[in-house]
Amino acid sequence: MPKNIVIIGAVALGPKAACRFKRLEPRSQVTMIDMDDRFSYGGCGIPYYVSGDVSEVKELCTTSFHMVRDVDFFDEVKGVKMVPSTKATRIDRTAKVVEVEDLKTGDRAKLPYDKLVISTGSQPRRLNVPGEDLQGVHYVANLQDAERIRALVTAGSVERAVIVGAGFIGLEMAEALADMWGVEVTVVELMDQILPGLVSPTLARMARGHMEEQGVTFRMGETVQRIEGDGTVSKVITSGAEIEADLVILAAGVLPNDELARDAGLKVGERGGVLVDEYMRTSDPNIYAGGDCVIIKHLVSGAPFFLPLGSMANRQGRVIGDNLADLNRKFEGAVGSFCVKLFETSVAGTGLSLAAAKRAGLDAVSVLQIQLDRAHFYPTKELMTLEMVVERGTRRVLGLQGFAGTGDAMIGRVNAVAALLGRGVTVEDISNLEVAYSPPFASAMDVLNSIANVADNVLAGRNTGITPEEFEALWSNRDSDEYYFLDCRERADASQFVEKHGGDWHNIPQGKLAQRLDELPRDRQIVLICNTGARSYEAQVTLDDKGFENVLNLQGGMAGLRKSGVEV
Amino acid sequence: MPKNIVIIGAVALGPKAACRFKRLEPRSQVTMIDMDDRFSYGGCGIPYYVSGDVSEVKELCTTSFHMVRDVDFFDEVKGVKMVPSTKATRIDRTAKVVEVEDLKTGDRAKLPYDKLVISTGSQPRRLNVPGEDLQGVHYVANLQDAERIRALVTAGSVERAVIVGAGFIGLEMAEALADMWGVEVTVVELMDQILPGLVSPTLARMARGHMEEQGVTFRMGETVQRIEGDGTVSKVITSGAEIEADLVILAAGVLPNDELARDAGLKVGERGGVLVDEYMRTSDPNIYAGGDCVIIKHLVSGAPFFLPLGSMANRQGRVIGDNLADLNRKFEGAVGSFCVKLFETSVAGTGLSLAAAKRAGLDAVSVLQIQLDRAHFYPTKELMTLEMVVERGTRRVLGLQGFAGTGDAMIGRVNAVAALLGRGVTVEDISNLEVAYSPPFASAMDVLNSIANVADNVLAGRNTGITPEEFEALWSNRDSDEYYFLDCRERADASQFVEKHGGDWHNIPQGKLAQRLDELPRDRQIVLICNTGARSYEAQVTLDDKGFENVLNLQGGMAGLRKSGVEV
Repeated sequence: MPKNIVIIGAVALGPKAACRFKRLEPRSQVTMIDMDDRFSYGGCGIPYYVSGDVSEVKELCTTSFHMVRDVDFFDEVKGVKMVPSTKATRIDRTAKVVEVEDLKTGDRAKLPYDKLVISTGSQPRRLNVPGEDLQGVHYVANLQDAERIRALVTAGSVERAVIVGAGFIGLEMAEALADMWGVEVTVVELMDQILPGLVSPTLARMARGHMEEQGVTFRMGETVQRIEGDGTVSKVITSGAEIEADLVILAAGVLPNDELARDAGLKVGERGGVLVDEYMRTSDPNIYAGGDCVIIKHLVSGAPFFLPLGSMANRQGRVIGDNLADLNRKFEGAVGSFCVKLFETSVAGTGLSLAAAKRAGLDAVSVLQIQLDRAHFYPTKELMTLEMVVERGTRRVLGLQGFAGTGDAMIGRVNAVAALLGRGVTVEDISNLEVAYSPPFASAMDVLNSIANVADNVLAGRNTGITPEEFEALWSNRDSDEYYFLDCRERADASQFVEKHGGDWHNIPQGKLAQRLDELPRDRQIVLICNTGARSYEAQVTLDDKGFENVLNLQGGMAGLRKSGVEV
Repeated sequence: MPKNIVIIGAVALGPKAACRFKRLEPRSQVTMIDMDDRFSYGGCGIPYYVSGDVSEVKELCTTSFHMVRDVDFFDEVKGVKMVPSTKATRIDRTAKVVEVEDLKTGDRAKLPYDKLVISTGSQPRRLNVPGEDLQGVHYVANLQDAERIRALVTAGSVERAVIVGAGFIGLEMAEALADMWGVEVTVVELMDQILPGLVSPTLARMARGHMEEQGVTFRMGETVQRIEGDGTVSKVITSGAEIEADLVILAAGVLPNDELARDAGLKVGERGGVLVDEYMRTSDPNIYAGGDCVIIKHLVSGAPFFLPLGSMANRQGRVIGDNLADLNRKFEGAVGSFCVKLFETSVAGTGLSLAAAKRAGLDAVSVLQIQLDRAHFYPTKELMTLEMVVERGTRRVLGLQGFAGTGDAMIGRVNAVAALLGRGVTVEDISNLEVAYSPPFASAMDVLNSIANVADNVLAGRNTGITPEEFEALWSNRDSDEYYFLDCRERADASQFVEKHGGDWHNIPQGKLAQRLDELPRDRQIVLICNTGARSYEAQVTLDDKGFENVLNLQGGMAGLRKSGVEV
């Protein structure tokens, strides 16, 4: 029997659910409303529109075959009734009616439904500081914001911009403004690293270092206290600085739009967000919800998880479309995969970062591996940095994050691990993981296999690795004579550091170590250094066999120090 | 207690097993022998050395930190005794002794072992035709072959080359000779497609078409009958042609070197190859084997599987190293992931191709999806072609193959599916697979999710797709009036074909179809066409709803026809 479906919200999940359902049940009715008169667009494309990579905003609103997804498109091509500029004011679950208001005319109406879909999305977290309403201060919430920001930069009226928040949108906007428009950009972040919670301080330093090389300034660990200006913004006052600005972009995260659901008595999460089961049903079986307004399950930690990504909305939208047609399809949850392009590099990850794992109460450790992304003899190749988070005891892999110049190559590795994360995957599984191999695309022992091998050695206590940051702390304390820094590369690589640092930097090539053990002190902690951490691990094995117990091994080696800006 | 380990064969698996084991048990002894005086090299790099991408053969024999892996290296750096130019003539399992012969002096000796590792590798399948021993006829088995071939091309004495075999090595050598040295290359292949058994005829046509555009000639379905020349090769006579050649490369596959194991009474496979269990142990628990000489388990079909890849050797080598040290690590088998670069494109795959699945007795079907590899509004993007093989009934995914210009991006998708293949993965799992998303790297509904969605629709009978080849057959039969070819793109896209083909090519845009049903014949099979297969599927849904039962839908659309060289 044909059904009557109402969908509230028409940006990403709504249209996907509507169209999938209509293909399954062409004779059912679907009415989709949205508060905005702009809908069904790729909001994640906004930074690329601001940069000019996407030349017209219309391109964010078209199909891949260049048809604009407007009211007529939904009517003719999709058989969906699209009602823009209309707000859902109340859900009457008993009567199964959505009360709506036409925002242009003020007219009110009631839309009856058999099944309802809530896809009300998210909104930017407000900063609540004085000056937020000055001209030139923008959130990045919708296409109108995008057009206003781009109009300012194309008019040439932006020389200095301040971006508040070093999450995905903040960093993408920083690149958009700095790279394409030559704007002097300062990013202000409350936490002490970029992409907080998502990647380790090590990877964050690498990415930040690259952005700094491209001219972006960062002010970490600072809060915005007020924004100043005479009608138009002129200055941002943080806890640590006064920064001149003629454009301010506020990108301090987003919050789920759950008010309508909450008012209707549907269950919401403790910290907001509509709660749904694995069929994407709310606590009312006649109401589905998905996209940026819901809380799903984190498949590694098992905890409630807010993951506002267009890709989630699309997958969940199809599942909802299926379930509106009674197909009983599941969306089990997510492992939190992400990727972000930052100038010539990218950062990606999946599962839990070390900090997130520890917050979740897991006995976790992470290992760093820096290795070429393809055969070392292949002419074009780059170092890829990966960090894998594993649980002691169970040897379970909890997450993988990375930083690389070759984004596709790194993201492919992240996706392969992500595929397994929700199914329980151990270090051994990744050691043996079958990465398609030929020299132009991978190493015979791929970086992904290698990092699992390193994790195996770390968990077994064979490899006692330290991070570049930990090394930095020891190195800055080198006058204490507690440490013996031993470069185990060949002389040609090590000599410049031996010369520069006199008695603080020692060199014995790893192959000669067994014969030169008597040069080493037994009463100091030995810190082993090589190019990327492979030979220093072999040196550690030798020292371990000879009874040296107090040995540390710099993970990622000199490459890790260089990339994360630790100077020696 | 320290052990005495002997390893026969020192190219890929041997050195990995030796070095891993020595790191675990530094006080044990490892002796590794090889018949060749060149060992521990990256044989998969040979085509890149021949092309000149790798400038010196030495680079294939060095570590990533540029140390040559010679006898001294193994001794000093790895603590492994390497004995080159030495052949194992017999394994005496009762006495636990390997009998060896020094190939330079003829001296014989006996090497006692506690545990033995067989890593004797593979050898090229011999063609056994007259003329194989002429000057200028080469197999690609070792570095000596590589150097001889490169010497010929650098000397400028090669104008025309014939390559026998369109597998990985044959195609890589074709590229090496044609691309970098301008050699006129003809590839002769026994089967009627390149990469036979690995990918479908559709993907093979796409890849072959690209190579033909780069100047490579293919002669498919032909056997070599003899090679002619006066001391030096001048001509190759196939079942279909006489081809002039001053270089012939024989690359018709490889066979496992299992003689030594066979002679020692170890179990070998019906079609050759040493049999090992999941600990990489042979039928003698004191003898391990791995790499190109063994048969492993195919984790999708469950059948015995010969997968001679350097990446396999490396993973298995580590497992053997672990097990020599009593760590009881498993290598469960493989799903057969591969990738190969062919000029500006690449082909990759994992699991079973449709043909392989059918040969394995599975009720399989495959679907084709052609979609942009990242957000359609992102400025740099390319079409990626994927083909997914699924089992009817169980809805199990059996394999994924692809053809794309952006190799890293495609291989990442292949690796993600490969990670799941051995664990039982359904179409729904891939529909929901979490591919890390941002516009520069993926679509919100990624091509991988889309292809699973297509498979879902095909399995449900909602989408009755045909391949480009099947379309070609129908189109060539268009005068029969059995078919009605309906282009459901917008007029601007379709009109040139309508004009060209008069009454044979019809156009109704998909969005207008429901209003124009009376233009369609009810007594003919309707063949729907769009750009990539998405709109033609929507058209099929509409027609299905209106009672048209005899409808076919061109998978991959016009893009698929173009890429596979089907002309309309």
